[in-house]
Formats: sequence, C-alpha cells, structure tokens
Amino acid sequence: MSLTAYLEAHKALVDAALDRLLPPETTPPGTAHKSMRYSVLAPGKRLRPILVIAGAEAVGGKASSVLEAACALEMIHAYSLIHDDLPAMDDDDYRRGRLTNHKVFGDAIAILAGDALLTLAFRLIADNAARVADPAFIGQIIAQVADAAGTFGMVGGQVVDIESEGMTVSPETLDYIHLHKTAALIRVSLRTGAMLVGAREADVAALTEAGESLGLAFQIVDDILDVEGSLEELGKTAGSDARKQKATYPAVHGIEKSRARARDLIARTKRALEPLGSAAEPIRGLADFVYERRS
Amino acid sequence: MSLTAYLEAHKALVDAALDRLLPPETTPPGTAHKSMRYSVLAPGKRLRPILVIAGAEAVGGKASSVLEAACALEMIHAYSLIHDDLPAMDDDDYRRGRLTNHKVFGDAIAILAGDALLTLAFRLIADNAARVADPAFIGQIIAQVADAAGTFGMVGGQVVDIESEGMTVSPETLDYIHLHKTAALIRVSLRTGAMLVGAREADVAALTEAGESLGLAFQIVDDILDVEGSLEELGKTAGSDARKQKATYPAVHGIEKSRARARDLIARTKRALEPLGSAAEPIRGLADFVYERRS
Repeated sequence: MSLTAYLEAHKALVDAALDRLLPPETTPPGTAHKSMRYSVLAPGKRLRPILVIAGAEAVGGKASSVLEAACALEMIHAYSLIHDDLPAMDDDDYRRGRLTNHKVFGDAIAILAGDALLTLAFRLIADNAARVADPAFIGQIIAQVADAAGTFGMVGGQVVDIESEGMTVSPETLDYIHLHKTAALIRVSLRTGAMLVGAREADVAALTEAGESLGLAFQIVDDILDVEGSLEELGKTAGSDARKQKATYPAVHGIEKSRARARDLIARTKRALEPLGSAAEPIRGLADFVYERRS
Repeated sequence: MSLTAYLEAHKALVDAALDRLLPPETTPPGTAHKSMRYSVLAPGKRLRPILVIAGAEAVGGKASSVLEAACALEMIHAYSLIHDDLPAMDDDDYRRGRLTNHKVFGDAIAILAGDALLTLAFRLIADNAARVADPAFIGQIIAQVADAAGTFGMVGGQVVDIESEGMTVSPETLDYIHLHKTAALIRVSLRTGAMLVGAREADVAALTEAGESLGLAFQIVDDILDVEGSLEELGKTAGSDARKQKATYPAVHGIEKSRARARDLIARTKRALEPLGSAAEPIRGLADFVYERRS
C-alpha cells in the first residue's frame, strides 16, 4: 500500500471510530457533546491515532485492537487545543481554518468540553486496555498516557511555553518545551499501540526512541511552517508564533539550522526503527510525511 | 472511635497522602505544581477521599489499600473547583476563605493546573487499581470514575447548571444538575473504595444507593447553607447562588421543603447501608455530619 493510501485508509478508520465513540449531539448535555464533536471531528491529520495504530501494527497487532486508545489520544490532543486557544491562553480565533471552540460555544462550554474530552480519553484507554491488554500492563499503559499528558509531559510544556512568552529562551528551555508539549504525546502514542497488543520490551524501546525523535521533528516543522506557510495551507494566520513572541526553533536557531535539525531527527527516527524491519514501514512513511508536509 | 476522631484521623491520613502524591513545588514546572498544591492542600472536609476509604472499610478493606484513589477523587473535586471559579465560569474570587486559584496564579495557569490534576487523578487510580484490584475490575473502576466525572456525571451537571443560570428551572432539571454535578462523584467515591478491595456485588449496590442519596443530600445542604450561612462559616459570601441566579433547592422548593428532603435522603442513605451492618457505621456518621454541618 502506498503511504497516501495507508494514511487515507487509517484516517477513515479513525474518523469513523471517533464519530462512534463521541456521545451524539442528541444525548444530554447536548451543548457539551456538540462542542466536543465540533473540535474532535474537525478536519485534521489524525497523526496521534494513526501512530497508535502504526505502533500496534509494527509489532504484529491489528488496528481493530487499539481503536479506542487511538481515539483517546486524538481526544487528548483536541482538548489541549481547545484549552490552548482560550482567551486566557493563546487567544486564537481560528484553528484548522474554522472558528475555535470558544468562539462558537463560549469560554465556559469550551473549558468544560476540554475537561470532558480528557476524561473520556481515560475511559476509552481503560476500556481498550481491559479488552485486549495483558492485565499486568493495564495500569502501566494508563499511567504512561497520564504522564505524557500531565505536568511531566504536555501540560508541563505548555506551562513553560506560556512562562517563556516574550522572553529570550535558551536552546535547552526550547527543547524542554517542544519535548514536553508535543513529543511526549507522539511518543506515547506509538508506545501505547504497541503495549496494548503485547509488544516485547525491546520493540517498545525502539518505538519510544523513534517516537521522541519524530515528535520533536514534528514540532520543529510546525515552527518552520508558522514562519513560511500561507493562511490557505495552515488554516491559521502564518507568523502567529512571532506575534505572540513564542519560543520557536527558527527564532532561536534560524530557519536553515531548524531544517537541518528536523532532517536529522527524521533520520534518527528511521534508525531507531531498524530492529522492527518491514512492519515499521508505515511509521517510516509517516516520518517522511511529517517532514514534507505543508500544513 | 467517635465520629469526630474518625474524621480527624482519616483527614490526617488523606492530607499526608495528598502532600506525598502531589509533585513538590521544587519539581519543574514549579508554577504548575505550586498552583495544584495551593488548591488541593487548601483546608477542606476531604469528604470524597474519606468516603473512598469508608467504602473500602465497609466491606472489610483497609485505608492503606485505597489511598491513591482516595487522593485522586479529591484531586478531581479540586480541579472542578478551580475551573468553576474561573472568570469564564462562576467568576469567584474566594474559595474556602482564600483567594481562588486564578486570582493567585492567573487564568492560564489555573486552567492548566486543573487539567493536570484531572490527569494525575487517573494516573493515581490506575496505579492504585493495578496494585490491589482484581485485574478483571481495573478497567471498570477507571471507567466508572470517568463516567462520574465527565458529561454523564459532574461535567454534565455543570453544563446544565451554567445553561440554567437566570432561568426558572423545573424540579426535574434541578435534580439532574444536583445528581450529576455533585452526587455522581460522591457515589463513585464509595463504589471505588469498595471495588478496589474486591467487594461483593450486593455490597457495591448498597453503597451505590447510599452514595447517591448522600450526594444529593450534600448538595441540598450546600444550597441551604448558601442562603443561611455566614462568611465566617462558609469562607465565601453567603447568598452568592442567589446573586448568580443559580438553580438551587431553596429557590425551587423553599427552605422548609429543602430541609425535609435532605433529612429524608439521610434516612434513605442509612436504610441503604443496613445490609453492611456495623462496618458501615462511619458512613452513617458521615451522613449525619453532612446534614448537620455548618460549612
């Protein structure tokens, strides 16, 4: 299967599962469910859920064994965007070319919809783990997602990101922000898919290393696109990081060095995947996709 | 042991565990951990964690077997208060006699601290369940807490609460709000404590019924106290529900009928506990405490 066909097929699988696993708008409280669906079902790359599936497939598992967890990772990502976009945080009006959640539903519902998505995510991972995982690993799988999403992961990155606005950040702080804000969730996506289907420890270690490099590359490319991309491609105004005085790779290292670092990280991702052989081919494709994407 | 001694001893146990399980302020990101600790460690009744422990003890379990989950329930409660108090929600400056989280740390950190507490709560429940629960129930225990906290529980109640502000609500809507916003988490506290230590299904059913009545009684008494209490007793300005045009029991049913309903619910709680015999004595005491408290 070509990478494009793989991505399309897996995106369709994830989109159908998200639609099924999110409560319908007709179920009370309707406003909350409408708001949750508005953000989660917005057009998107579905990178994290596809990585959950690719992680499972890389160790011989099936997509159908990890779909709830895949959707959970997308919900955690979506909740973080909803809260990030709030006036109290980044104050963004547009996301993926559409009005942000709070611009449509108001700040209160947006906060609660984010809270509910994070909550639902843990329910789905617990359901999924109870259904397929070795009982000895259920607790560990949930704990690692929590660590990747909380102050030792994504939230930690966001806190330092906010605190660094308008300041000159060191390369070390920039790496801390990117590794925590973005790479932690991408890394745990690969790990979770693999661990749910009973991967060997060595394979989980290989996916962990690949996930961290891929996650960091993803955020560096994001930073570059924010400088170079167009509104049409990004669905948001380019240059918004600079306007918000965000700590970015191009701001700290310049565009050329940023591109070289992203390229190097993609190479590292592929090297880490070597022990997994051809079963990891889709992840290698995803790595190229992350580097070459225009939005 | 007298009820007062029981409450004191268990509160001390919970407070020590919360202090141990919350990351220290010196661990990065320090601001987030400081903000989380500020709200969770604020003086409080610790009703939910004590109910987790009492639920375990009522079926022959030990406090030490359920401490992480007990703390998790308090963290979920604390996160909901932090987000509730935000300007975009109830816009409260004081809580338990101290400045609310966002008044001290700013809205952005308050949002993220709430998110992080919810995340940490699921990690702790997963850890606790993996440590002591029958593997067959780990998924179910986490799922039921998620249901009690999400749109089919607490968040659902908050959404309808917000949507009902300034409107005349029916007794049915009022019950929906109270049962979801408050009772769901109190009920699941008792259930979780019992299920973690392997309670029989009949005992879990009895605790579920007791928890629902107790939870509803708790919120009705809260509503009454908001009308009648003093600033000194409540740590917040009395009458704030009326000012915010919140749907409350006294507003819909009058004070006398509200008191009678709370009394009836406490009696129901005790009837539901009958099959559990003397092991449920602390929960009966907690029920009296909920009815008689002045703050």
